[in-house]
Amino acid sequence: MTRSVNTPPLQFRDIDEVADALRDAGGRFSATRRLVLEALFAADAPISADRIAAATGEGGARLDATTVYRILERLEELGVVRHVHLGHGPGLYGLTRDGGREYLVCDGCDSVTALDPAQLDPVRALVREQFGFEASFTHFPLVGRCAACAGDHAPGPAASAGHGHAH
Amino acid sequence: MTRSVNTPPLQFRDIDEVADALRDAGGRFSATRRLVLEALFAADAPISADRIAAATGEGGARLDATTVYRILERLEELGVVRHVHLGHGPGLYGLTRDGGREYLVCDGCDSVTALDPAQLDPVRALVREQFGFEASFTHFPLVGRCAACAGDHAPGPAASAGHGHAH
Repeated sequence: MTRSVNTPPLQFRDIDEVADALRDAGGRFSATRRLVLEALFAADAPISADRIAAATGEGGARLDATTVYRILERLEELGVVRHVHLGHGPGLYGLTRDGGREYLVCDGCDSVTALDPAQLDPVRALVREQFGFEASFTHFPLVGRCAACAGDHAPGPAASAGHGHAH
Repeated sequence: MTRSVNTPPLQFRDIDEVADALRDAGGRFSATRRLVLEALFAADAPISADRIAAATGEGGARLDATTVYRILERLEELGVVRHVHLGHGPGLYGLTRDGGREYLVCDGCDSVTALDPAQLDPVRALVREQFGFEASFTHFPLVGRCAACAGDHAPGPAASAGHGHAH
């Protein structure tokens, strides 16, 4: 399988610092790259390429999905962006400055819980102790059922959607 | 995202019992379905559709990938087969009678460790206790680095492949 991108994260606080870093690395900083970065900076969590494309359309000409994917791939190689796989859904993209987040994804309602890695360190320690395996939930999240969805299905097959989640 | 298949597993010990169960359910039991099932019964772990297609070629006419996927999908609907997602790789398919296995997948060398769910129950309990989340590693495995690959990368960027894994 293809590997996760191992470029060290770039250090940056805003779009201009990304632009500087890209130019230092010999890269260009095109208007389309800026549009994609604006969408990523505006989001407070990793978002899909489709949502990024839609966001670029708010200020003018909407970028097509292929262009967005190409830019995301390049930004990932440069250490500005990372993606996370959300179960069966499309990958989500976020800035590396928000990096080190790990994720729980509910296979029932698609809800995503972002966690500081320290919160999952006890789980990681237990997996390491029992299996000599170094777990990471950054690139491939921990998948299962959130409390609401697990509760629905806990007593039996009578899955009443009492908590308001769409199933 | 599409959901995992929730058909209850069929009860069966061999191919003839699967055939009986499919006929009872009003399904046919074609020669091509038998070929796919023979490959699944011969494998001692979940395998890819490509490997199933290759295995069908050993005894005669090799099934094409589209046919294999179609049959796997139908067998999954019938509760005979389940798939597991292995990181970036293709899905793997296994018989539900081997069911309830959970998996650790190494993002470094692609190695797969199959576990009895009881072995992961302490991890599940800790995740439940801390996050009210019901973890499952059956459909989406726990991804990280196996001991050998984690060891390679532990001290720093000098990743000597001393343990013989291909990187």
